Amino acid sequence: MTDPSQDIRWMRRALRLATLSLGRTWPNPGVGCVIVRDGRLLGEGRHAVFGQAHAEVNALSQCQALGNDTAGATAYVTLAPCTRHGKQPPCTTALIAAGIARVVAAVSDPNQDDPAIPLAEASITYDEGCLALAAAQIHGGFLSRVGLGRPRLTGKWAMTLDGCIATHTGDSTWISSTAALNFSRRRRRVFDAIMVGAGTAYHDDPSLLSSLVGERTPVRVVISRNAELRENSMLVATRAKAAVLMIHGPEAPAGNRAALASHGIDLWEVAKPHDPVAVAAALGRYGLNEVLVEGGAQIHGAYLRAGLYDRLELYVGAQTVGGGIGVAAGIGAELMNDARHWQHEDRPLVLGDTICLRLRRPPVLAPGEEPVVVEDD
Amino acid sequence: MTDPSQDIRWMRRALRLATLSLGRTWPNPGVGCVIVRDGRLLGEGRHAVFGQAHAEVNALSQCQALGNDTAGATAYVTLAPCTRHGKQPPCTTALIAAGIARVVAAVSDPNQDDPAIPLAEASITYDEGCLALAAAQIHGGFLSRVGLGRPRLTGKWAMTLDGCIATHTGDSTWISSTAALNFSRRRRRVFDAIMVGAGTAYHDDPSLLSSLVGERTPVRVVISRNAELRENSMLVATRAKAAVLMIHGPEAPAGNRAALASHGIDLWEVAKPHDPVAVAAALGRYGLNEVLVEGGAQIHGAYLRAGLYDRLELYVGAQTVGGGIGVAAGIGAELMNDARHWQHEDRPLVLGDTICLRLRRPPVLAPGEEPVVVEDD
Repeated sequence: MTDPSQDIRWMRRALRLATLSLGRTWPNPGVGCVIVRDGRLLGEGRHAVFGQAHAEVNALSQCQALGNDTAGATAYVTLAPCTRHGKQPPCTTALIAAGIARVVAAVSDPNQDDPAIPLAEASITYDEGCLALAAAQIHGGFLSRVGLGRPRLTGKWAMTLDGCIATHTGDSTWISSTAALNFSRRRRRVFDAIMVGAGTAYHDDPSLLSSLVGERTPVRVVISRNAELRENSMLVATRAKAAVLMIHGPEAPAGNRAALASHGIDLWEVAKPHDPVAVAAALGRYGLNEVLVEGGAQIHGAYLRAGLYDRLELYVGAQTVGGGIGVAAGIGAELMNDARHWQHEDRPLVLGDTICLRLRRPPVLAPGEEPVVVEDD
Repeated sequence: MTDPSQDIRWMRRALRLATLSLGRTWPNPGVGCVIVRDGRLLGEGRHAVFGQAHAEVNALSQCQALGNDTAGATAYVTLAPCTRHGKQPPCTTALIAAGIARVVAAVSDPNQDDPAIPLAEASITYDEGCLALAAAQIHGGFLSRVGLGRPRLTGKWAMTLDGCIATHTGDSTWISSTAALNFSRRRRRVFDAIMVGAGTAYHDDPSLLSSLVGERTPVRVVISRNAELRENSMLVATRAKAAVLMIHGPEAPAGNRAALASHGIDLWEVAKPHDPVAVAAALGRYGLNEVLVEGGAQIHGAYLRAGLYDRLELYVGAQTVGGGIGVAAGIGAELMNDARHWQHEDRPLVLGDTICLRLRRPPVLAPGEEPVVVEDD
C-alpha cells in the first residue's frame, strides 16, 4: 500500500511548510502537516502562531474548507502529533475524529507520549522516520531545548580576509557587502532571539532587528553582569518593535534594573552570567528554541571553547585590515588536532563580494558510515 | 579583412599556451604564440624554458616541421614580440623573414621598443590590445617586475573559521583538508618562488616544494636578518630538488653565511630585511616575476600593511580553535573604511571541507566604468 517515494514527496512538502514557521512559534515547534489521499493533496497547514491551532488541525480545517473528505487519508507531519492537552487539544484526537487512515511523522517529539498507542487503538497505521534527518535539522532548536534544556545556538560573525571582526579601534562598519548585510538581516527572522554581549551592545549600538518585522520578531538578548544598557541605545529606542531581554548577574545594581524595567526591558537574573552553560540554560528556561549569537569576541571565544555553538554562520568580507580584533578572544585549543570540526551545510554563498559559509556540528556517524563530502576538484 | 571574434578565438589559444609556462621561464615572460591563415592553425609554440627559443620562433618552427607555409599568415602573441637582441635574436626579425602578414599582440612589452616600427617597414600590420586584460593577468608577474621593479606578490594562508593560522602554541597541522593541501602544493608550480619568514621556517620546518617537480621548480626563499636556518632543516635537506635563497641583513654572522653557502644556499644581502619594500625590490633584482608568500603572521602583517600583496590565496578550513594566532600580527587600519579592498578572481572553490578564495587588487576603473560583480542572490 505505502510507497516510500510518495512518502518522501509529501513529507518534503510538509517540511517546507515547517520552515515558514521558523522564529514564529517558540516555545512550540513550527510543525508542518500535509493530508493526502490516492496521490492527491486534500489540504495542508502549519503551526503558524504560538497559542493558536497546531499544524494537523489547520490542515484538517483546510480539507473541510475545500470540501475534501479526509476519511481514509494519510497525514504527513514533520513532528509526531501531540498526545497531551496543552493550549490546544491533542492532535491525535483530531486525526482520529477526521477518519485518517495513516499518519507518517518525520521525527518523534520527546515532550509527548508515543502517538502510536492512541492511533493504533483507532486502527490508524503510524510510521515514523521519513526524512528524519531533515526534520531534526528544521526542528533542531525545539529538540535541543526539550532534550538538552537549552536552545540551538548559532554563532554568527563577519570577518575580514585576515580574520578580524573589527579594526584594533573596534570599528566594524562594514565588513559585509550590502547584499550580505541585507541577507543576514533577513536571516534573523528564522531565529527566536538574537544575542550579543554587553561590549557589542555598547560599542556597536545595534538594533538587532530583522529587516522583516512580522507578528513575532526575534527577541533581542543582551548579557551584562551589571544590567548595563544605555537608556538612549538603539535597543531601548526600538523596544516597541521587538522585546529586549537583559540577562544579568545577582550583583546588578537595583538602579540599573529599575531603569531598564521602566523602558519595558525584561530582566532575567542568572547566578553566573559569564558562564555560557548557565546563560544557555536560562535561554532554554525562557522558552527560546533558536538563538543567533552575534558576538563580540569575548562571547565567541567563551561559547566556542565551551562547545555551545551548534551552528555557525560566517560572512567573509573582501578586505584586509592588516591586524585587528580577532573572532575569538582568549586562548583556545593547544593543537590543531584538538580544534572543533564543522560540517558545511551547503556550498559557499556569494553575496556581492562577501562569501557566506554555514556550518553545523558534524553528526555522530554510525559505525562504518562515511561522512558526505561535497567537492569541486 | 580582420574579424574580432577570430582574433579573440586565437588569442585565447595563445593565452592558454602561456599559462603552461608559468613558473618556468623567469626572469622572462612565458609568452604563447599561435600562427593562423584563413581560419586554419598552421603552428603554435611558447617560450617554455629560460634561455631557449621564444614563443614566435617555436611556433614558426612547428609550422615548418608540419610543412605549413607561413607567407601571408597572422601571428597571435600574448606579449608584443621582442625587438632587441637578448639571449635570442629579436622575434620581429623572425616574423618578417617568415613572410607573416599581420601580428596581433595582447599587451605591449615595456622592456622592448615598439614592434610596430620594424613591422611596418616590412609592410606587416600590427594590432595590439586583443584580450589585453587577460594577458596582463597572466603576464602580471613579469609586467610588475619590469614596471615596478618587484615581482607580483601573492599572500597565501590557511585559516580556521575563527580566523587563526595556528593555535596559541603555534601548531598549524593541518587546517586544510587533504584535497586542499594537494591543490595548494600543485599550485606552487605556477610561481617562480615561495617565500616564508624565519619564524615559519623554524617552527613549521616546511620543504616548500611543489608536488610537481619539473625542470624548473620554485625557488624557496627565507627572510632571516641573521641568515639563520638550521642545517638539518627540510629546506637544506631538499636543496638538490630546488634552489634556496636566503635574504639576510648586513649584520648576519659570517659563520651562518658560510654554513649555508656550504650547503649550496644562495645568500642575498639586503640593507633592511625587515622592510617589505626592500625585500620586494631584492626579489625583483634576483629576476623573480611571481612570488608566493606563505607567512607567517609577522610577514603577512607587514606585507598587508605595506600594500605589497597583489593577490591573495586563502584556504578556510572547517574548524574553530576558540582563540589562537591571527593571520596578521601587528596593528592595522584604524577604521574598516580604511581597510584594503580585494576583488574575487573566481567563485569560491570547494576542496573537501576547505574553501579556497582567490582575490586580486581591484583594477583601477576608467571614469564611469562599473566594477564586475558576481552574485548568487
